[in-house]
Amino acid sequence: MGGPEVEHLIGLLARLPGLGPRSARRAALRMLQQPEARMLPLAAALTAAARAVRSCSVCGNLDSRDPCGICTDAGREQGLVCVVEGVGDLWAIERAGIHRGRYHVLGGTLSALGGIAPEDLNTGPLLARAASLSEVILALGATVDGASTAHWLTDQLRRVAPELPITRVGHGVPFGGALDVLDDGTLTAALRSRRPVA
Amino acid sequence: MGGPEVEHLIGLLARLPGLGPRSARRAALRMLQQPEARMLPLAAALTAAARAVRSCSVCGNLDSRDPCGICTDAGREQGLVCVVEGVGDLWAIERAGIHRGRYHVLGGTLSALGGIAPEDLNTGPLLARAASLSEVILALGATVDGASTAHWLTDQLRRVAPELPITRVGHGVPFGGALDVLDDGTLTAALRSRRPVA
Repeated sequence: MGGPEVEHLIGLLARLPGLGPRSARRAALRMLQQPEARMLPLAAALTAAARAVRSCSVCGNLDSRDPCGICTDAGREQGLVCVVEGVGDLWAIERAGIHRGRYHVLGGTLSALGGIAPEDLNTGPLLARAASLSEVILALGATVDGASTAHWLTDQLRRVAPELPITRVGHGVPFGGALDVLDDGTLTAALRSRRPVA
Repeated sequence: MGGPEVEHLIGLLARLPGLGPRSARRAALRMLQQPEARMLPLAAALTAAARAVRSCSVCGNLDSRDPCGICTDAGREQGLVCVVEGVGDLWAIERAGIHRGRYHVLGGTLSALGGIAPEDLNTGPLLARAASLSEVILALGATVDGASTAHWLTDQLRRVAPELPITRVGHGVPFGGALDVLDDGTLTAALRSRRPVA
């Protein structure tokens, strides 16, 4: 519908997470009705962001500045670094507003199946500054790969900074979650991390 | 997060139908991880579609050709015209593949509240070719505005083509719909349009 340009546009939109073929079609139609007001500004914003954004050389965050806005924020605790798998995890923690330190983005987890080896992860800048840090929080997924990555990274950090406190985020029942749909691993973690009722 | 270019992009993405602030953020992040492969092609597709697509001067469809691909499709019944409110309705009927004729897009319905008067609707090209048509199907919404637009348009068509058969789409119980959640108007229409069981 609408010619090859429109079909091509719908195909690209449908690949965005959250949009399927049907909603991509609706989005394209909505934009086509106001091409000057809606399509060209979005095209310009995509181009500008693609050109501006790069990987922060300190922490691996995506930002238009390098070092990124978080690394250069003097109001943050410099020595407290939260290690995450991807930039999406960093954004999620920032939205929650619960971390007052900085980050380090690994860019993945070790994965035998996925063929991701230690040298594929972004660890150099973290190990280089490890000795100057006050705490590293491992905020990796509660998966086999996440756990083995945490184990391996802990070893690496201990080698360069034996005294550095290393913690990991707690596992348990998520808020709003019913117990009977949780897997055994989460239930086990939740029972093991039980606390006295206040 | 990510600097002003990224925030601006997320703001524009969040205005697309089907994407909220949260999924816009996810979509932006996904694209930012492959700017060359994902963002620049989408920017180019948006620009190309915005430049190419125009309103068909015959039927009001959006297409990169004028007259549009449907109007120039010799395999379609030339005299059978389905009148719809918007291009989205046209696309929906085309997806269903149930109409073998052409279309006419009004670009809205008469609306006292919305301040849409007869002269705001695209009717000229339809009235101009009305005398040469074999049937006009009114596929307007089953709303007060849709019904009054159908009524008004029927008058206009009768004036220029008194013999032209004019029909409207059937109203009734939608497939997959339970009767007890339908409004009285739909139930009334469904009962009135009852047919003998085959």
